[in-house]
Amino acid sequence: MKRICYFLFIVLLAACRQAAQQLPAVVFQTDFGLKDGAVSAMKGVATGVDARLKLYDLTHEIPAYNIWEAAYRLEQTAPYWPAGTVFVSVVDPGVGTERRSVVMRSKSGHYFVTPDNGTLTLVARSLGIDAIRQIDESVNRRQNSGQSYTFHGRDVYAYTGARLAAGAISFEQVGALLPDSVVRIPYQQATLQGDSISGNIPILDIQYGNIWTNIPDSLFKQLHIQAGQQLSVSISHGNNMVYTGTMPFAHTFGEVAEGKPLGYMNSLMNFSVALNMGSFADSFHVRSGADWTITIRK
Amino acid sequence: MKRICYFLFIVLLAACRQAAQQLPAVVFQTDFGLKDGAVSAMKGVATGVDARLKLYDLTHEIPAYNIWEAAYRLEQTAPYWPAGTVFVSVVDPGVGTERRSVVMRSKSGHYFVTPDNGTLTLVARSLGIDAIRQIDESVNRRQNSGQSYTFHGRDVYAYTGARLAAGAISFEQVGALLPDSVVRIPYQQATLQGDSISGNIPILDIQYGNIWTNIPDSLFKQLHIQAGQQLSVSISHGNNMVYTGTMPFAHTFGEVAEGKPLGYMNSLMNFSVALNMGSFADSFHVRSGADWTITIRK
Amino acid sequence: MKRICYFLFIVLLAACRQAAQQLPAVVFQTDFGLKDGAVSAMKGVATGVDARLKLYDLTHEIPAYNIWEAAYRLEQTAPYWPAGTVFVSVVDPGVGTERRSVVMRSKSGHYFVTPDNGTLTLVARSLGIDAIRQIDESVNRRQNSGQSYTFHGRDVYAYTGARLAAGAISFEQVGALLPDSVVRIPYQQATLQGDSISGNIPILDIQYGNIWTNIPDSLFKQLHIQAGQQLSVSISHGNNMVYTGTMPFAHTFGEVAEGKPLGYMNSLMNFSVALNMGSFADSFHVRSGADWTITIRK
Repeated sequence: MKRICYFLFIVLLAACRQAAQQLPAVVFQTDFGLKDGAVSAMKGVATGVDARLKLYDLTHEIPAYNIWEAAYRLEQTAPYWPAGTVFVSVVDPGVGTERRSVVMRSKSGHYFVTPDNGTLTLVARSLGIDAIRQIDESVNRRQNSGQSYTFHGRDVYAYTGARLAAGAISFEQVGALLPDSVVRIPYQQATLQGDSISGNIPILDIQYGNIWTNIPDSLFKQLHIQAGQQLSVSISHGNNMVYTGTMPFAHTFGEVAEGKPLGYMNSLMNFSVALNMGSFADSFHVRSGADWTITIRK
Repeated sequence: MKRICYFLFIVLLAACRQAAQQLPAVVFQTDFGLKDGAVSAMKGVATGVDARLKLYDLTHEIPAYNIWEAAYRLEQTAPYWPAGTVFVSVVDPGVGTERRSVVMRSKSGHYFVTPDNGTLTLVARSLGIDAIRQIDESVNRRQNSGQSYTFHGRDVYAYTGARLAAGAISFEQVGALLPDSVVRIPYQQATLQGDSISGNIPILDIQYGNIWTNIPDSLFKQLHIQAGQQLSVSISHGNNMVYTGTMPFAHTFGEVAEGKPLGYMNSLMNFSVALNMGSFADSFHVRSGADWTITIRK
Repeated sequence: MKRICYFLFIVLLAACRQAAQQLPAVVFQTDFGLKDGAVSAMKGVATGVDARLKLYDLTHEIPAYNIWEAAYRLEQTAPYWPAGTVFVSVVDPGVGTERRSVVMRSKSGHYFVTPDNGTLTLVARSLGIDAIRQIDESVNRRQNSGQSYTFHGRDVYAYTGARLAAGAISFEQVGALLPDSVVRIPYQQATLQGDSISGNIPILDIQYGNIWTNIPDSLFKQLHIQAGQQLSVSISHGNNMVYTGTMPFAHTFGEVAEGKPLGYMNSLMNFSVALNMGSFADSFHVRSGADWTITIRK
């Protein structure tokens, strides 16, 4: 009797634990848009792997084929998700070519399932590479998907990401270990010279028209600028000066009048430029890219 | 033996209950758009608080800084979610200024986590204020978020909303009780004079181009108009008459021919005007706002 | 003692099972857009039915009133979701008229909750009709929703879909069994004549500007075209020839230079035409519809 009772207890505890267990989230990013069923099909495949999974989105509005922006959005977002979260990022202009499909585990404990085409450029640097494995597509591929040459996003990446998050495969079962390096998109870093810093504009804060630079808080601090102090800011596109002006370094947009410019630290702790209640990008025709440079001085 | 058996039973029942427990949903609304990672970062923070949480969206396409529309969408949507649901609404042009961060519990049992900047104008009236507490940011703020001056949405509102929904804090632990009043955006109410009603156009039904008015069913009924009966409708922008015409009061769009106008009660039970299979707003250049007035008579 | 122990075991096992039980997913599709609260209200109603439900989206950007596209997206997506999934599709230009509200169970075990207005045209053919029931709105309608004539999406379809997924009603309790036929939108099928196939363009791959045809893999194979072989492709709009050219049949976009055309099988295994890293639709002003024809020959 006693033995049976203990046995039942163990069975039940296991059942309860399984019921209570929270799987890591799966977070999807693509350039598919949301107008058709492509993203939903990925989530259907993941739900078919394990209906307990919680499936979230980073964005599906990466401009088509824009690997740089995919890399940027991953770096912007991943640190706010708990360790163990599985990111599935599919911006894949080289689909079907020889680019490798990989899963990178960062030192922060996040997983990134993606073609290794530059998408990992920024998270590999900022979160650190713990290990990278090549997806063995002979195993880690949805059944009956052999015919479709175009939908690796659904049949390989979503499927593998879901199986990893659900514990259906271990990280080791993804495939062979690769060297700790990823395909990197070259990018500039901001530099300090005397009392001025030069950087570029890797991306815009699209929704509001703010200018985000690659000048980190740590570098900016070396200018010893206090809140409220005036800055000289100039922005060039190639050799053309597009904007030059002065603005305060502010902690809140409300410190300047509506329509007036300010400098501030954005949510990624990079120096940024905005108009209070306006679009700096539209007002001064500023865009992003490696050929856009910004210089700030005291 | 008996005692052990009961003890195990209690342990297991507690485990099962915890496993089965459904936390209230968290519903996010912002003007962040979905093109970057800002919304996803909020959900990452909430998932980090408790992975069991179910996270949903109201909309993230509130026009930038448009507090009135945020207020309208909350009122439009909240009543359809069960009591206990936690809404996190971040349309916050005054971020970093002295506006208060609050959680309002409505008489209907919904929670609203938001800057108190007018966002609560309409739900405070229609759902009623049960209690309002100011978020004590010395406690209710994501760890290591002290440096970021701009992302209260993620570090205060999403974090506090998630902790409240997860039961990590009680409503009392949000912070000090405030008086039962919120910052209100002034707005007009529709009025009946003789056999005509004057109101305005607080918002459009954007997707279809229908005109939504602030004339409630209860006021409209005082005109004693039967289904199918003709109405005179005129719409003005300031002093300019923009539209004048007659149309039936219909229960279904199909009661008029394609392209023909009709009056109807919308999903919020406010009088509305549409073209069957067309856009009234685009056809007659009607927009929304306090300076758009509409008059209907028998 | 033994009896009590067994009894407790049964109670606990039931509790655990309930906790662990994964309900089928509910997947929403509408033409409501995401700018207002209409989609969120549907999810609120579903959450009110059972907070355990997992609620997903197909798309909410079906062009307003476009039943054909709703039908196409369902067929494109449903097979990737597990059997048991409940699709709630609301593109309903005839709301309030005499079109029937139905739930179709396909032979694949998927459920489709929708107005029977053509939305089921394609899934009825490709997944097969197992049974169709008319929604009995006297029972399967949200409480207190009697006044709203326009929001069947929320008050009937979302509510019934959620109750079906949650097991609150059985399929039989939806309402009376109907004959195994649905309202069908007429559409052409591709035909083979000699060494050429004529088809049409039911839809575009909007995000990338690729041309999707109604020529299935099975028909295409009868041309015995090898990968890399050249095809002649001509596209007409009514009687106007819009495009004529040759292109290889490729397995991957990378097989042609950037900006060059190729033919390929899309994710639905239909013949498609694209420009590598470009928009074929925009470059050659090709759109979709029954009046767009495409001819391919060896």
